[in-house]
Amino acid sequence: MSTLPDQATAPVQTVNVDTGRERYEILIGSGLLEQPEAWLGLPKASHAVVVSNVTIAPLWADRLMQTLRPHYPKLTVLNLPDGEAHKDWPALNSIFNHLLEHAADRKTVLFALGGGVVGDITGFAAGCYMRGVPFVQVPTTLLAQVDSSVGGKTAINHPLGKNMIGLFYQPQRVVCDLDTLQTLPQREFIAGMAEVIKYGPIADEAFLAWIEEHLDALLAREPQALAYAIRRSCEIKADVVGQDEKEGGLRAILNFGHTFGHAIESGMGYGQWLHGEAVGCGMRMATDLSVRLGLVPPAALERMHTLLVRAGLPVRAPDLGADVYLDWMGRDKKAEAGDIRFVVLEALGRAVVRKAPEAVVREVLSQAVRV
Amino acid sequence: MSTLPDQATAPVQTVNVDTGRERYEILIGSGLLEQPEAWLGLPKASHAVVVSNVTIAPLWADRLMQTLRPHYPKLTVLNLPDGEAHKDWPALNSIFNHLLEHAADRKTVLFALGGGVVGDITGFAAGCYMRGVPFVQVPTTLLAQVDSSVGGKTAINHPLGKNMIGLFYQPQRVVCDLDTLQTLPQREFIAGMAEVIKYGPIADEAFLAWIEEHLDALLAREPQALAYAIRRSCEIKADVVGQDEKEGGLRAILNFGHTFGHAIESGMGYGQWLHGEAVGCGMRMATDLSVRLGLVPPAALERMHTLLVRAGLPVRAPDLGADVYLDWMGRDKKAEAGDIRFVVLEALGRAVVRKAPEAVVREVLSQAVRV
Repeated sequence: MSTLPDQATAPVQTVNVDTGRERYEILIGSGLLEQPEAWLGLPKASHAVVVSNVTIAPLWADRLMQTLRPHYPKLTVLNLPDGEAHKDWPALNSIFNHLLEHAADRKTVLFALGGGVVGDITGFAAGCYMRGVPFVQVPTTLLAQVDSSVGGKTAINHPLGKNMIGLFYQPQRVVCDLDTLQTLPQREFIAGMAEVIKYGPIADEAFLAWIEEHLDALLAREPQALAYAIRRSCEIKADVVGQDEKEGGLRAILNFGHTFGHAIESGMGYGQWLHGEAVGCGMRMATDLSVRLGLVPPAALERMHTLLVRAGLPVRAPDLGADVYLDWMGRDKKAEAGDIRFVVLEALGRAVVRKAPEAVVREVLSQAVRV
Repeated sequence: MSTLPDQATAPVQTVNVDTGRERYEILIGSGLLEQPEAWLGLPKASHAVVVSNVTIAPLWADRLMQTLRPHYPKLTVLNLPDGEAHKDWPALNSIFNHLLEHAADRKTVLFALGGGVVGDITGFAAGCYMRGVPFVQVPTTLLAQVDSSVGGKTAINHPLGKNMIGLFYQPQRVVCDLDTLQTLPQREFIAGMAEVIKYGPIADEAFLAWIEEHLDALLAREPQALAYAIRRSCEIKADVVGQDEKEGGLRAILNFGHTFGHAIESGMGYGQWLHGEAVGCGMRMATDLSVRLGLVPPAALERMHTLLVRAGLPVRAPDLGADVYLDWMGRDKKAEAGDIRFVVLEALGRAVVRKAPEAVVREVLSQAVRV
C-alpha cells in the first residue's frame, strides 16, 4: 500500500521492519486514523483496547475508535495519566486491571495511542498480559513516531533508574498519522526533532545535510517535510534494529546522546527535562567527547551545536556536579561492571561505542554547564 | 555429562530442552548443589544473585553459594517471603530493588533456588530486568522439578487472576538436586506427585503404569525412583514444549486438571490449597468430564481416582457453587471469548483440548463435591 485511492491524500509511506524473528510495517501519512486501509490485516479478536492518555484521548481517540469499531465487537478505552513521571508500575497495573476487569483474553489487541510513555507502557503490558497479546503502536508525537514506537523496546521506569524494567516486544504494526503532530505543543515537537537530528550524525551525513536545509519547513510542520524526515528516521532505525534486535552491539548507536541525556533526566528528576531535550543536550556533549577523544574535528561540534540551537533545543547542561553525572551514568544499562561506555562519532554519519577515560568525561561535563 | 567422576554418586541424568529458539539442559541427580561440574559453562558475569525464600535459604543457600563463589566475584542473596500468596508484584519488585541497589548490569545472572513461586518470580524478573538477563533454575520442590522450572513459563499472580502477568522466558539451565526433596514437607511432596502423575494420562500410559507400580518407592522418596520419575516427567514436558513453546496448541495438554484446579485455587483464595492438590483434584474432574463426553470408559476414572487416593491427593472438590467455578474458569487464560476449553483424555496416555457444554461441566462440578 504505497499509495491510497484518494488522490487528495498524500501518499502513504511504508517502512518494513524485520528483526529476523518478527516482521511488521510502519505506515506514515496524513489522515491515517480515519483511513480504513491502514487498519486492515491486523490480528482478529473479539475485544480490542485503545490505551491512551488524558491529553491525547480527547483529541484523537474517537477517530481511532470509529475506524476500529467494525473490526472488534468489543472496543474499550483506557486513559493513563500523562507524562514521564507516570511511566511506572501503577500505570502498568492499571492496564492489567482494565484487561482483567473486562475479561480480556489472549487474543485481545492493544492499541497504544499516544507518545512514547503510552507506547512503552502499553507495549510492556501487551508483552506480559497472559504472557503476550498483540499490540499496535499509534504514536502521536514526533519523538514516538521516529524513535520509541520502532524497534520493540518497551519499559517502565523504576525509582532507581529509567527504563530499567521492560521487554523487547515487537508491535504488529506502527501507524504514524502526521495530522496528530499538528496539535503537539511546540516544546514537545522540538524535543522530538532531537531524535530526528540524531539519525544524521550516527548513520547518514546526507540526511544531516537534508535536515539542515529543510529545518525551517520541519519547524513549520509542513507535512511533506515531516513525512520524509519520519520515513528516513524510521528507515535508519529499522535498518539498525534489523541487524541487532537486542542491542548486542550495533543497536547501541541509537543511544547517541542518551548516556548523558539519561543522567540529565534522572539527575533533574523525571519530568523536568523532556527526553528529547535531554538527548539534544546529550548529543552535543557526546560530540564534544568525540572531539576530545580525537575522533572528529572541532568543526563537527560546531555544526551539531549550530543545528541544535537553530532547532530550539537546549545545549547547556544542568549543573548537577560531575559526580552526580558519573553516578547516574554508571547505573545506565549501557554500563557493565563500572566501565562507562559512550556512543561517540568517528565522523558525522558514523557512530561507534567506546569506553572513555573518566578525566575526559569530566572535561566534557565541566564545559557543558558553561556553554 | 551423563556420568560424574565420583562413582559413589548416582549418575546424573540429563534432559535436553530445545524450543527452536533456545536450548538448555535439565540436570537431575543427588548432591548437585555441591557438584562443581553441574555449574560449568554458564554465562560469565561479575555479579550473580541467588534468589531464594526464607524457608529454603537456611537449608540450601550456603551450599549453592559456596559452589558458585569461584565463578562470580560478587555474589549476593535475596530471600523472598514463602508461599503462593507472595507470588505478586511486591515480591517481584523486591528483586528489582535488590538488583538496582547492587548496581546489577545486563550480564548479572540470577539463580532461582526454591519452589515454583521462587522460580516463576525470578524468571519473570530476569526476563524484565534491563529487558532480560540470564537466569538458572534450581528447583527444590518436586513440583518445580517436574513442572514449573521446565518450559520457560514465568509469571506473578494478579488479584483478579492467577499467573495473569508473565513471560515465556527460558532459563540457561535447570539443576534438580534430589537431596533437596528429602527435606520437603510431606504435604508439598504429595502435591508435587500430582504433576508427576499427570504426565501418564496425558502422554504415556506406560509411565502411568510405572508410577502405579513404584508409588510406594516414590512416596518413600527413594532417590532412584525419584530420579526416573523426574527424568521421564521432564522428558515429556520438554518434548511437548519443544513442539509448542508458546501454547499455540499441543502445550495446552500440560494443563490437564488445571482449568478446574485454578478455579479451586482462585475460589478458595491462594494458599488454601496447594497448586498440586488443586491439580490432583482437577485431574479427577477432567477425567470425569472425559468419561461424560464419551471419550474414555468409566474404568479410566476409577484408575485415576484410585491412584490419586493412594498418593494421598484430595479428590473431593470444595463446594464453591457451580457458578463460582464457571466464573473462575471463564477467566482462565485458556478461555477465549467466553468459551471454556478443557484438556480432556481420549485415552489414558493421550490428551486433547475440547470445548465442553456447560450442562456437562455442571454435572462434573455437582458430582465432584460429593466424592
